[in-house]
Amino acid sequence: MTIKLYDLVGRDDRRFSPACWRIKMALAHKGLAFETLPTPFTKIPMIEGGVTKTVPLLVDGDKVIGDSHKIVHYLDDAYPDTPSVLGGPAAAALTDFVNVWVLSEIHTRLATLLIKDIHDSCLPADQTYFRESREGRMGKSLEAVQEGREGRVQEFRDALRPLRILLERQSYLGGDGPLYADYIVLAAFLWARCSSDFDVLALDDPLIAYLRRLMTAHDGFALKAVERGV
Amino acid sequence: MTIKLYDLVGRDDRRFSPACWRIKMALAHKGLAFETLPTPFTKIPMIEGGVTKTVPLLVDGDKVIGDSHKIVHYLDDAYPDTPSVLGGPAAAALTDFVNVWVLSEIHTRLATLLIKDIHDSCLPADQTYFRESREGRMGKSLEAVQEGREGRVQEFRDALRPLRILLERQSYLGGDGPLYADYIVLAAFLWARCSSDFDVLALDDPLIAYLRRLMTAHDGFALKAVERGV
Repeated sequence: MTIKLYDLVGRDDRRFSPACWRIKMALAHKGLAFETLPTPFTKIPMIEGGVTKTVPLLVDGDKVIGDSHKIVHYLDDAYPDTPSVLGGPAAAALTDFVNVWVLSEIHTRLATLLIKDIHDSCLPADQTYFRESREGRMGKSLEAVQEGREGRVQEFRDALRPLRILLERQSYLGGDGPLYADYIVLAAFLWARCSSDFDVLALDDPLIAYLRRLMTAHDGFALKAVERGV
Repeated sequence: MTIKLYDLVGRDDRRFSPACWRIKMALAHKGLAFETLPTPFTKIPMIEGGVTKTVPLLVDGDKVIGDSHKIVHYLDDAYPDTPSVLGGPAAAALTDFVNVWVLSEIHTRLATLLIKDIHDSCLPADQTYFRESREGRMGKSLEAVQEGREGRVQEFRDALRPLRILLERQSYLGGDGPLYADYIVLAAFLWARCSSDFDVLALDDPLIAYLRRLMTAHDGFALKAVERGV
């Protein structure tokens, strides 16, 4: 039975959720067939009988699993004959550091650069929910958060320094080939790419070649999706 | 034959080199017997017939290996029956990210907080070399670099945020037990501890419990060394 993945959807079938991208890349890495079920923010509480408040949600036969961290561990455990995406227990633990670094250094800053664009990429029916929940967390309007981003983008680019130094020395965080740690990074940039036209990276940033390599991996899985405009 | 490790030495037998600490912890992790050969900065060019400009330098029978990255890979390859300190190839690749992060976010900042204290911890015969080489790199006097550190230490502490978040969730970067990635972090703090009385961490920082766990690991290897004052 094909794996099903509830995947956040916005306007024009845009699929910008970084948490969902991580899992789509993990499934592609493992060569597992799956179909995505496009899910608006405000419909998440209704899926699978109301088991979750967030996506991704993975349904594999009678297993229903939420939370990207749990899902990726499930996939490596349940499909040991496919390529490991975490790289084993020690690598999985170290991937958690990459995850924390990406969340605290990349996601937090990207949100301040893109939050209004992300809002505009949501389905119209989701926009009120998105605005109220995010403005509640951030304590100001989405417009106020995003304002002046041209003056702040350099600070975001500077924060990527450790990644840039590493990628002068090796092709991927995973070494010679990509692992889940790489997809965590890619997913952050796909979040930006699928929700906004704002250039979060300078056009000559060497990270672009790295992200391109990841997008072309697995028969161009991510690239094809982005080129379809989703 | 016991492994020999050329280990940087300062005044009062202080052993503050973070690169040497990484390897001492890796050897302790693997349970390999070794002796350290205390080496002043200005004597490094003379050791083992002049093969290196830096320590650590490891001598294992007829093998002479420099550079902490090469040494740790050598140890895991040459002693496969002892506990792996890198955790396998995928974990080793991800450890390189931790390394880059520690160098660019921790070492760089620690140097600006401690450089004059480190100078003062060097053997008197090494101090001219240390001052000239570091002032050449940094473009100003050691005193000018270190000046005002009380006002800058919070920025250092803030940069540790990803580590602090991770360690709320797991005991070590390596997961349930420490790996080389943890020793990379510990080594940075031992560099501070063995060269300066300046409190780089607030006394209530949860990272202190983590560093303490690492220092008590392997029969208190690091703790005993620090308590001996070296």
